[in-house]
Amino acid sequence: MTTLATTLVLGGARSGKSAFAEQLVGDSGLSRVYLATATAGDDEMRSRIAHHRTRRGEGWLTVEEPLALVDALTREATRGRAVLVDCLTLWLSNLMLAGRDPEVEARRLTRFLGVAKYPVIFVSNEVGLGLVPETPLGRSFRDAQGRLNQIVAATVPNVVFIAAGLPLWLKRAL
Amino acid sequence: MTTLATTLVLGGARSGKSAFAEQLVGDSGLSRVYLATATAGDDEMRSRIAHHRTRRGEGWLTVEEPLALVDALTREATRGRAVLVDCLTLWLSNLMLAGRDPEVEARRLTRFLGVAKYPVIFVSNEVGLGLVPETPLGRSFRDAQGRLNQIVAATVPNVVFIAAGLPLWLKRAL
Amino acid sequence: MTTLATTLVLGGARSGKSAFAEQLVGDSGLSRVYLATATAGDDEMRSRIAHHRTRRGEGWLTVEEPLALVDALTREATRGRAVLVDCLTLWLSNLMLAGRDPEVEARRLTRFLGVAKYPVIFVSNEVGLGLVPETPLGRSFRDAQGRLNQIVAATVPNVVFIAAGLPLWLKRAL
Repeated sequence: MTTLATTLVLGGARSGKSAFAEQLVGDSGLSRVYLATATAGDDEMRSRIAHHRTRRGEGWLTVEEPLALVDALTREATRGRAVLVDCLTLWLSNLMLAGRDPEVEARRLTRFLGVAKYPVIFVSNEVGLGLVPETPLGRSFRDAQGRLNQIVAATVPNVVFIAAGLPLWLKRAL
Repeated sequence: MTTLATTLVLGGARSGKSAFAEQLVGDSGLSRVYLATATAGDDEMRSRIAHHRTRRGEGWLTVEEPLALVDALTREATRGRAVLVDCLTLWLSNLMLAGRDPEVEARRLTRFLGVAKYPVIFVSNEVGLGLVPETPLGRSFRDAQGRLNQIVAATVPNVVFIAAGLPLWLKRAL
Repeated sequence: MTTLATTLVLGGARSGKSAFAEQLVGDSGLSRVYLATATAGDDEMRSRIAHHRTRRGEGWLTVEEPLALVDALTREATRGRAVLVDCLTLWLSNLMLAGRDPEVEARRLTRFLGVAKYPVIFVSNEVGLGLVPETPLGRSFRDAQGRLNQIVAATVPNVVFIAAGLPLWLKRAL
């Protein structure tokens, strides 16, 4: 068993970031809560969700919350538990589709993190390392994701970048 | 105050690389010169430039030079000053639009760096970590950016990769 | 001369990963085998292959094998030699175009690596750090590349990520 502090797990698509986050939670010995921001809107997403569910195996309480992340965290992050949020990228996408302001929501999240007493593991994508996207929406999403990652990274004690399933720690205070 | 050596600050879009570079310059206690390669060609770019200007705050001398980077550096990098070049990616884009040969310009830049006595902080994008771009122009730009980053990285003493605002040092000689 | 263990060299396009891999092999003092998975299908690829060939210089035995990678490795990885596989990304692309199952091929490769006695240096691209690709084929390729990189990374003792020609070691057991 290892002590677990709030951590941002960054990485690309299929980089192994969810599996790494699950391992962090599993090693902690805490009760495991999986907070899914995905909604099974199409076959591709349904298949991805099923794949993740199979890999996690038993022992997780699964909660689905596409938009009201801070409310869900307030309910679920309690003594003896670790909450894995998978992932901030889908949450951001859901917020933008719903016409919410990502900056306002990010500030609500950092206020929560400033007072949170129990560990939360966030999974998020790095999406800004390709060419400039061709559409304004693409550029806008890429920029919002970069800002959200920076805001969360500045707030949490631990940040790790995953490539090919392996960690590069950007910050490890605890 | 910290000693500042010439540094290449690499990262994705909205990774916090400009803010990191500004911090490096600010911590040095040197006079600050901001050498902007951007030209306010459209609303999106104008808004981005204004955002950067607001964040930097007072205390910067701003110089704009979209193409003749080495000439500008020769003028501006003088005793007691640090020059922040933001960014090599826009410079490369400007060179290619103007029909200049990026390899020739990169060699001029490395010759300058070989004899430069005052610190320059370069911001540049990593753009090669997505799928292969669909257009020949996209592939050509991605390749030219990769080559330019390699050439500068081989020449300068310090290279850092920024993700979510946090540094991974690739090389730190000074 | 340095001891050389099997290594995965990850990076973006034009990140300097092939040159880094060639250096690893060169420093080992072993006989050098270049196992190319590229096929000179168009002018752009022909020019890229010629560029790589010129940089490597003399002293390499070149073998081309677009699909049957494990068979070629079984033949070529022998006492006193190091084999550079450049690259897994083109191999994966060739497999998918030929209708082969990348997962089956990846399992064959890891079985080979489990018993291999001589060093192999694999070059592979990280392609998952941009926005979600717009086409199902693009998403499918990106996912397959991420899975292949994870599988190989979990099997080999050394994994390194290259940016601007410089290494960040993700794992260095030997």
